[in-house]
Amino acid sequence: MTTENGRASDEAQIHKLIEDRVEAVRDKDLARAMASVGPEILSFDVVNPLRYSGSEALRQRAQAWFSSYQGPIGFEVRDLSITAGHDVAFSYSLNRVVGTLTDGTRIDMWWRSTVGYRKVDGRWLTTHEHNSVPFNPENGKASLDLKP
Amino acid sequence: MTTENGRASDEAQIHKLIEDRVEAVRDKDLARAMASVGPEILSFDVVNPLRYSGSEALRQRAQAWFSSYQGPIGFEVRDLSITAGHDVAFSYSLNRVVGTLTDGTRIDMWWRSTVGYRKVDGRWLTTHEHNSVPFNPENGKASLDLKP
Repeated sequence: MTTENGRASDEAQIHKLIEDRVEAVRDKDLARAMASVGPEILSFDVVNPLRYSGSEALRQRAQAWFSSYQGPIGFEVRDLSITAGHDVAFSYSLNRVVGTLTDGTRIDMWWRSTVGYRKVDGRWLTTHEHNSVPFNPENGKASLDLKP
Repeated sequence: MTTENGRASDEAQIHKLIEDRVEAVRDKDLARAMASVGPEILSFDVVNPLRYSGSEALRQRAQAWFSSYQGPIGFEVRDLSITAGHDVAFSYSLNRVVGTLTDGTRIDMWWRSTVGYRKVDGRWLTTHEHNSVPFNPENGKASLDLKP
C-alpha cells in the first residue's frame, strides 16, 4: 500500500467514525456514540465547565444531553475537513442540532467542532474534542443563532 | 533517526512554534505571530463570527486584537498537550490574557485553545485554530470568568 493510499484509507476510516457518531447521536445510542472515544479524552464543551477529562465524564455529559431532548435529535455535520496522517489526525466542521427539549424549548443551533484522533493498535480513537459557539463582545451573550 | 526520536523532534518543533507565538502576542509582533500560519487556515475564534477563512482574515483579526489593548498583552498558555505524528499534529491548552483595553476595561480571561498543524516542505504550519469560552445555558452568557 502506498503512502497516498494509506492516507486515503485513514481519512476514510475517520470519515466512517464521524458518520457513526452522527447516527449514534440521532438515535441517542450512548454506547455507539462513545465507541470511538479514548479513555483519556480531554473535552472542551459548548457549555460550562471549562473542560471535561476522561471518557466517563464525557459519557455522563452525552447521556444528560440525550435525555434533555424529546424524541430523536436532529443532527447534521457540514463543511467537514479531515487532515489525517499515519497515526495522528484532526477534523473540524460546523454541526447543527435541531430538536425539542423536554421542557418544550425548540432548539436549532449551529456550533463549531474540532476533533483530535490517535491511531492506537490500528484503530482510530478520539482523544480530544472542542465544541463551541462564539460570543458577541458587545453584550457578552453566546451567539446561538449564527448560520453558516 | 528512529521513529520515536522523530516524534520527539516533531513535538519539540511544535512546542517551539507555540512559544514563538506566545512571545509574539506579548510583544504585539504581528509578523512573528503570523509566521507559522498556513495560507489556507480555517479559524474558529472566541468572538463572532462563526469562522474566519485564510491567513489574511486572521492577520486582520490579530491586528485588531493587538490594537484593542493598551501596552503589552499578558499572555499565558497552560496545560499544553501536543500530539504529533510524522506530518499531522494537534495541540490543546488553556490560554489566559491579562491586560487593559484602550477604553480602560481590565481583562483577565481564560479560554480553551485547540490548534491543528501540517508539515509542509519539512516545516510545521498551523492550518486550523479553535479558540472559545463555554457559555452558561441558564442565562445564555459567555463564561468569561472561569479559572482552571
